[in-house]
Amino acid sequence: MTNNSFSFIVASDDLSGTSARTGHITTPHGDFDTPVFMPVATRASVKTVSPAQVKEAGSTIILGNTYHLALRPGAELMRKLGGLHRFMRWDGPILTDSGGFQVFSLANLRKISDSGVTFRSHINGDLFTFTPERVLEIQDALGSDIIMPLDHCIGWPSTYEEAREAMERSVRWAARSKEAKRQNQQTLFGIVQGSAYRDLRRTCAQELTAMDFSGYSIGGLAVGETKEIMTEMIAEVNAVLPRHKPRYLMGVGTPQDILMAVSQGVDMFDCVMPTRNARGGGAFTFSGKLQVRNSCYRESTSPIEDGCPCYCCQNFNRAYLHHLFSKKVEEVLGLVLLTVHNLTFYHRLMSKIRDAIHSGNYREFHEQFLHKYGKEKEREK
Amino acid sequence: MTNNSFSFIVASDDLSGTSARTGHITTPHGDFDTPVFMPVATRASVKTVSPAQVKEAGSTIILGNTYHLALRPGAELMRKLGGLHRFMRWDGPILTDSGGFQVFSLANLRKISDSGVTFRSHINGDLFTFTPERVLEIQDALGSDIIMPLDHCIGWPSTYEEAREAMERSVRWAARSKEAKRQNQQTLFGIVQGSAYRDLRRTCAQELTAMDFSGYSIGGLAVGETKEIMTEMIAEVNAVLPRHKPRYLMGVGTPQDILMAVSQGVDMFDCVMPTRNARGGGAFTFSGKLQVRNSCYRESTSPIEDGCPCYCCQNFNRAYLHHLFSKKVEEVLGLVLLTVHNLTFYHRLMSKIRDAIHSGNYREFHEQFLHKYGKEKEREK
Repeated sequence: MTNNSFSFIVASDDLSGTSARTGHITTPHGDFDTPVFMPVATRASVKTVSPAQVKEAGSTIILGNTYHLALRPGAELMRKLGGLHRFMRWDGPILTDSGGFQVFSLANLRKISDSGVTFRSHINGDLFTFTPERVLEIQDALGSDIIMPLDHCIGWPSTYEEAREAMERSVRWAARSKEAKRQNQQTLFGIVQGSAYRDLRRTCAQELTAMDFSGYSIGGLAVGETKEIMTEMIAEVNAVLPRHKPRYLMGVGTPQDILMAVSQGVDMFDCVMPTRNARGGGAFTFSGKLQVRNSCYRESTSPIEDGCPCYCCQNFNRAYLHHLFSKKVEEVLGLVLLTVHNLTFYHRLMSKIRDAIHSGNYREFHEQFLHKYGKEKEREK
Repeated sequence: MTNNSFSFIVASDDLSGTSARTGHITTPHGDFDTPVFMPVATRASVKTVSPAQVKEAGSTIILGNTYHLALRPGAELMRKLGGLHRFMRWDGPILTDSGGFQVFSLANLRKISDSGVTFRSHINGDLFTFTPERVLEIQDALGSDIIMPLDHCIGWPSTYEEAREAMERSVRWAARSKEAKRQNQQTLFGIVQGSAYRDLRRTCAQELTAMDFSGYSIGGLAVGETKEIMTEMIAEVNAVLPRHKPRYLMGVGTPQDILMAVSQGVDMFDCVMPTRNARGGGAFTFSGKLQVRNSCYRESTSPIEDGCPCYCCQNFNRAYLHHLFSKKVEEVLGLVLLTVHNLTFYHRLMSKIRDAIHSGNYREFHEQFLHKYGKEKEREK
């Protein structure tokens, strides 16, 4: 069960009074610096862009969704075709989730018990059973570098009793996952659950820490709770988790959320936000988000963001993007160009975050970013 | 009205008894070899792909649609934004059509007279008037290198009287276009009409030749007529058109149609076929067309075409393409990859055509291509 091909080291701690840190992770498919943002390749594709474009945008590790890939093209076919890296031609590190979140949010649930969960595919109604052992088997077929154990995800809000039961089941499943026979090359994280209940979060983090995982995910946040609750839960959990293991905040998030979580010592993030926003005409910039469909961009000869090195900003102006997204035009190229830009924005943000931590002035960087970007909510101008 | 920046030379004639020839065209935005295929960038975008990908596929000149661009983003805005080259970041040659075909097929016609045609936009009902002078003005705003005069396009089939009237009007409009004040840098072709009537085609070609255009387009074909009629009309027209001017067969077509027309001395082609087929999962190969959605490709580890140098074939197998196009997956990346491949196929085909002509054995090449590709219809396997 030892894993020699995965390592995490803390490279530098922020000196401005936050818990932010930079680090370096090594996997069988390469290494990357943290804090890191992982683009989401739900169905073996980061939506609208090629792996070459994903790499060019600055991505060093991507995330695949076990639930979706188990449905299409299916675990056995993925194994036959040589795994996810080969299939989608991404030669860098891949992290896969366990499918837990999608099973409990997308699928038609049939039955949940301690042994696992039986559900019907949201695509065609086919019956599937996910057990802790089965999701590891599926991830083994995918061949991802970092894998997750099946967890019991619940909605927001939930009662204490619901949250406790789901958390305790997730811990039992994590223990089974830890014991299951696995490929040496895959690194298993534990997932901290517990909804918005501090004591449940703390207990969960303690029990998982005792099992000595190679890294820890924080699940069940950014599901509808307030920013205050999210912040509080991360603080609670990170106070328990060991400093020398990477921390991954699942499904987060906005630039503001990422900055907050980094200041609390989170190292890894994934979110559909840059790619999904792009497909809706939303572009991230360091001055806030903009919507290229807005008529004010009709004649704008500025790029989406001055100084951005991406293919979109280096070549096209806002007027062209506005045109591509306008009604009855709706060219696919618009989706591609904004996706390239938004991924580049997220990776530039992470790079600036790492630089600020390394220079020991993360607090100042954080404040200045919010000042320019907009503190309270995504600005639409 | 002279134009020093456009030139066409016949480089070599086929020696195997066909009228095929290779040539070289120079324009203000660069030069290219003929026979050439021009990808269609209807709304300032070759659908789904970036100009960098269009170029990488081997494209040397692209086509823009005056009708669509006059509606969105509009001629005046295009002029303000520096023209089509700058807007869409294509620095090579651009040919624009006159909008005639779209006005008569897409728009809601209000009134047609010798002065021009008034119609309502198919997008929002806005009223537009296209006169021969106005479409030159629009193309001037676009800044394309090769431009077309407004022509009166009719449906298929049409009576002799309809065809004669439309042809005669097109000739009068061509004469007006020739006389109109134009930018020196834009090269105007004449468009031969006449439906499926040999004498009308011949008369039209003669009258346009007498006006001494820099090149000649053959319009009104591939609109529903048989292959025999298309072949016959091209032969009729090319027997009249001067040898030292380029000939452009508008809107054609399948690989088989292109090969036939090349054998009759046509030099330029445009068609949505490679891009439109790609978006439907259709991939061109030298062994015929294939449909990646077909279940036989579910586990295929072959590229779309062995030996194809495109990014799609160099990286991805048919199983991956099948996955991207499968129901409830339908990833945009699939459209992009097949578009890249199909454009590459068309340009490789043209390159092989030029090589065969240059080697003096076009007839043999033509026969061998059809033998391998499938003679009668696009094969779906």
